[in-house]
Amino acid sequence: MDATYLQQFLSHSARSATRSEIRELLKLLSRPEVISLGGGLPSPELFPIDELADLLPRVLHEHGSVALQYGPTEGDAGLIQELIRFMAEDGVPGLGPERVLVVSASQQALDLCARVFLSPNDTVVCDLPSYIGALGAFSACGARLAGVPMDEEGTRTDVLEQRLVELRHGGIRPKLVYTIPDFQNPAGVTLSARRRHDLLAIAREFDLLVIEDSPYRRLRYVGENPPSLASLDRDGRVVSLFTFSKMLFPGLRLGWIVAAPEIVTRLVTAKQSVDLCTSALSQVLAREYLRTGALEPLLARMRACYAVKRAAFLAALAREIDPALGVRWTRPEGGMFLWMMLPPQMDARRLLERSLAENVAFVTGSSFHCDGSGKNTLRLNFSYPTLDQIDTAVGRLARAIASVAGERIDVDELPPIRPPVVSGEYSLDQLSLTLALTEVVV
Amino acid sequence: MDATYLQQFLSHSARSATRSEIRELLKLLSRPEVISLGGGLPSPELFPIDELADLLPRVLHEHGSVALQYGPTEGDAGLIQELIRFMAEDGVPGLGPERVLVVSASQQALDLCARVFLSPNDTVVCDLPSYIGALGAFSACGARLAGVPMDEEGTRTDVLEQRLVELRHGGIRPKLVYTIPDFQNPAGVTLSARRRHDLLAIAREFDLLVIEDSPYRRLRYVGENPPSLASLDRDGRVVSLFTFSKMLFPGLRLGWIVAAPEIVTRLVTAKQSVDLCTSALSQVLAREYLRTGALEPLLARMRACYAVKRAAFLAALAREIDPALGVRWTRPEGGMFLWMMLPPQMDARRLLERSLAENVAFVTGSSFHCDGSGKNTLRLNFSYPTLDQIDTAVGRLARAIASVAGERIDVDELPPIRPPVVSGEYSLDQLSLTLALTEVVV
Repeated sequence: MDATYLQQFLSHSARSATRSEIRELLKLLSRPEVISLGGGLPSPELFPIDELADLLPRVLHEHGSVALQYGPTEGDAGLIQELIRFMAEDGVPGLGPERVLVVSASQQALDLCARVFLSPNDTVVCDLPSYIGALGAFSACGARLAGVPMDEEGTRTDVLEQRLVELRHGGIRPKLVYTIPDFQNPAGVTLSARRRHDLLAIAREFDLLVIEDSPYRRLRYVGENPPSLASLDRDGRVVSLFTFSKMLFPGLRLGWIVAAPEIVTRLVTAKQSVDLCTSALSQVLAREYLRTGALEPLLARMRACYAVKRAAFLAALAREIDPALGVRWTRPEGGMFLWMMLPPQMDARRLLERSLAENVAFVTGSSFHCDGSGKNTLRLNFSYPTLDQIDTAVGRLARAIASVAGERIDVDELPPIRPPVVSGEYSLDQLSLTLALTEVVV
Repeated sequence: MDATYLQQFLSHSARSATRSEIRELLKLLSRPEVISLGGGLPSPELFPIDELADLLPRVLHEHGSVALQYGPTEGDAGLIQELIRFMAEDGVPGLGPERVLVVSASQQALDLCARVFLSPNDTVVCDLPSYIGALGAFSACGARLAGVPMDEEGTRTDVLEQRLVELRHGGIRPKLVYTIPDFQNPAGVTLSARRRHDLLAIAREFDLLVIEDSPYRRLRYVGENPPSLASLDRDGRVVSLFTFSKMLFPGLRLGWIVAAPEIVTRLVTAKQSVDLCTSALSQVLAREYLRTGALEPLLARMRACYAVKRAAFLAALAREIDPALGVRWTRPEGGMFLWMMLPPQMDARRLLERSLAENVAFVTGSSFHCDGSGKNTLRLNFSYPTLDQIDTAVGRLARAIASVAGERIDVDELPPIRPPVVSGEYSLDQLSLTLALTEVVV
């Protein structure tokens, strides 16, 4: 069985998902001296190891016959009650359990939404840039992606409306708009309260479902959260995705969806053929952890830690990067990422090569753009590296930027390292390139 | 958002996956006095709770920063080494890590195979009957299912060959044959050594991939295992699926795939958009559990327990069921299920209604038949109920059978409770009916 022979057995979607040749880059990345700003990983020093080591034996002794067994596809009833309480504290009171589905973290939530809503050639509206894992899940179902630009208030809802009118004139009626309203991945910006109302009004006008992906909402370091879209939803068209990966720990693989009961029913049916049920051990552990009241203090520790890292990162960028080079970056009020925009003629892939030579890694921005634009952009993570590593990494990055700026090479002259992207379609090739570079891009 | 309004937003596959109206049956099933022979659940008294309660705090303290973090999509490198050792002990020596993919239990393995190999209208060959979760995963990708009957040696490979010739004449070239060679779910029969060789020869002749689903292989109570298909594979066309759900505990949600490296690469790409990675906590826990050497003693305890339950179940059936009624059942050498064949005129759905009135539940057999046949068959689980429950349940089942046999109703006169199934296509409706009845049918 070689790769050529295998082709005949592949599905349409698997055939289009070819992998790129990036062995050389991978070799560079696996060296221990490389500091990665590429992933979206929580800082391991925040993992509540002692608390869990105390809690787990008790959970096993008291609830082992449930925690180690198969569970219902919808999720553990006790955990769902805790999630309902959690949602009520964030402006969504009185949820019934039929509006909640426990999932195996939010990538599964995205995959389930893609399966339930998207047939080949259906259109999804997303931000430019947007989360690569969502773009990949939608593309795997054959969806087309229509991108809308952002500014410091998040999605340009005026452009969104205009785009929807254009699409309608072209006979295209998108089904979904996908948004990460809080500390967007990768751009780090937050959708303003005004734009949230605008987005929902547009969704009503154009009869769209809204997928609100909200992994970072509880990780705000500056200012106050605007209301969630779930809390503003009046007609059941918002499907909200939450995860414990960023506010407890990713190894739990646990998240939840809040949606209209009819939608939850459909998602449950899809989940049955995907993984039967989410780990009961993870669910019972999270349920008992929430019941001890330990989550809020943990979140406070996380915010304190990441606020310092964010400030250090921003300070290092201001200190190290020559303002004359025209490099800009966002100042996120929460979450895990900064977004950097190089001058238009500077190529982020070229910068990545130079940065890897300086032993610092990041994710290039064009992978997050469904239209293949953003070649001069990159995502920088500040949650995972230590304060020392942040200082070192930003210094190295600044040297790499200065070096690439000095090259004065026309971007169009660079040899292509992947095929060009068709506008309006998203190549899984891009996804694979970026994923392979950083193992999991989250 | 009501169910009718929602229709316009659904994907093709979600639209075809409607749920049945079975509220009345569900109400009956949720009563605590009902003994369920429906699921495929391990017996909770076998869960190694004390061992895990000792092991988990150590795992957290020594490996917490890995166990609680995201991990590589392929799986934990240390766990993969343990799986390679495990495979070597079962006749598959010298596997390289590039041939192993860790997955979130075997339902995910089935889903990944479906996504990577199956486009709409591709054909999969499976047994009559076969595992409902696999049929559901294949159908969700739009595949057509072609069924081949079984006998006491498993799949009728002579009929398989004949069926493949017929399909070829009809211009249909199946891509996959799906088989559960050891203690098949639901029929409980084992594919003989001779038939295993035949199956692989046919797969070569007709250029098919073979999916070997092997959850129960280590749970043999009588006789010796024939070689696994993985161990007989010479040209990389076997994709073998394994899980810890039946040999450690289901709450782990952990399994693995062994396949050619090119196939593993494709499955990894698919997994990235499905759930990014399998729980590192589950993986590190399993890895450390395997390293302690505790798995083999646990498997020995499981075999001892299930052997007694199996014998008790068979003895109760022989004692309680009137031979004059013409009811037959399989005598599995391992696994978790017996398969019962009622006389042709007796309807298993009618028996289920009578059985629920007697407070015993099972899964009707037609849901496991991709051609809608098997209306007089049912699956009985012997791993989950206690010995007392087995005696009580079989007594109740025997009364229900006697009662239905006394009714002498023509099956064709019974009111249909679900739409008729098109031959060669599998209705997800069936799957939902059965799943809702037993929560998770595994």
